[in-house]
Amino acid sequence: MLPSPRIQVIAVEGIPVIDGPSDLPEIILRALGRSGEKLVDGDVIVVAQKIVSKSEGRVVRQSDVQVSEHAQGIAKRNGFDPWQVQLALDESREVLRSERVFITETRNGIVCNFSGVDRSNAPRGSYILLPENPDASAEHIMRVVIERTGLSRLAVIVSDTQGRPWRVGSVNLAIGCAGINAFKYNRGKQDLYGRVLEHSTVCQIDELAAAAEHAMGQAGEGVPVVIVRGYPYSDGPEHGSNVPRPKSEDLFR
Amino acid sequence: MLPSPRIQVIAVEGIPVIDGPSDLPEIILRALGRSGEKLVDGDVIVVAQKIVSKSEGRVVRQSDVQVSEHAQGIAKRNGFDPWQVQLALDESREVLRSERVFITETRNGIVCNFSGVDRSNAPRGSYILLPENPDASAEHIMRVVIERTGLSRLAVIVSDTQGRPWRVGSVNLAIGCAGINAFKYNRGKQDLYGRVLEHSTVCQIDELAAAAEHAMGQAGEGVPVVIVRGYPYSDGPEHGSNVPRPKSEDLFR
Repeated sequence: MLPSPRIQVIAVEGIPVIDGPSDLPEIILRALGRSGEKLVDGDVIVVAQKIVSKSEGRVVRQSDVQVSEHAQGIAKRNGFDPWQVQLALDESREVLRSERVFITETRNGIVCNFSGVDRSNAPRGSYILLPENPDASAEHIMRVVIERTGLSRLAVIVSDTQGRPWRVGSVNLAIGCAGINAFKYNRGKQDLYGRVLEHSTVCQIDELAAAAEHAMGQAGEGVPVVIVRGYPYSDGPEHGSNVPRPKSEDLFR
Repeated sequence: MLPSPRIQVIAVEGIPVIDGPSDLPEIILRALGRSGEKLVDGDVIVVAQKIVSKSEGRVVRQSDVQVSEHAQGIAKRNGFDPWQVQLALDESREVLRSERVFITETRNGIVCNFSGVDRSNAPRGSYILLPENPDASAEHIMRVVIERTGLSRLAVIVSDTQGRPWRVGSVNLAIGCAGINAFKYNRGKQDLYGRVLEHSTVCQIDELAAAAEHAMGQAGEGVPVVIVRGYPYSDGPEHGSNVPRPKSEDLFR
């Protein structure tokens, strides 16, 4: 009897605290070396946004932020942190809601709370911004890891935990990827009764990020790197930046 | 060196086509028996909605549906299937959008396309409805499996693939659960710098459903049952019905 097909979600333990610009691919490879875990072809490395941002120096000190009257007003009305509001405005190209919640569209087109600007796991008195270009961040990690390991096939996903408009609670999702197409398609596949399925698109990078969260634990940077092994995927031209719905297709704005 | 902590997502192969009311827990246990896979305490069984619905007889023949003028109108304007529109209306308590898409809130409070009414993987000339009460469906499967295996701890999630308002592509999510709390909480946990994290709520059943989809494959009922093993969780009073945001908290209606 063959064993049932299985996918493994593996926590990479021993990633140190990252406090400034650093060689993240090397940090990941060293932690893997210490844990005795070896990457294999076809692995997907899911990396939490927080350590990607910190390794890229996307950290801003509160004392360096000039809070505008506009930001001050939003903060006061809602009981928000005025510095966080200012940074979220700076990182955004549109504000969707600023009552009770502060939902913006970032310059990368991601619709989320406070443009993803966050204080948790940031050095005291600082804020962490999203990576400037999460797809490029994923691409960089992928290339360097491939170069240093000699692997022939690897994917990298940069993940972040975000809320959803219709459902309570946040989930981990993908803001950037490399080496894997953002979507997989049902086009032309048949259902159980031999009928060709209607076109369907599954966001596989969001599902992989969600799966990785199980091994990341609850306190953000506890285990910021997770390997998903045994998941069959293809590369393709669609990346994290293709996942946010274009404004013209967003029926709820 | 201890092996790194890992979570396994295991496809349960050999579930037969279910065409009418049937003893789903027994079907799952038999498939497990044939595959040589044994359930262990703490496993999470994720079951695709389609086979739950079929095993509960939630299948309607097209010839039994009376299409109203209202449904006819919506179908005509959008090029939709009028029978599907009628069934979606019957299953809904509110229509959120009926131009280009048909988004409803079901009687269970789930906001989704066509109230989850679908033709794919349905017997020819029929439609599959969502389970009447997906939490109760999960509870039933859990109880019977526990009874017949003697396990002391098991969780069951009923999953469905649904779209998202701001993000392209669908993902698998949880519409019902038993034996596991819908959410996990960060309350009182500390971040890397010893600060107490702001309250955060993660919808762990949605993340588990997303993880399971990787092993379910793309053609819906191909592998409709998946086991997630090695994921630490707690039970609690919050179920699938607590995940859809109450209308009063939905900022986008």
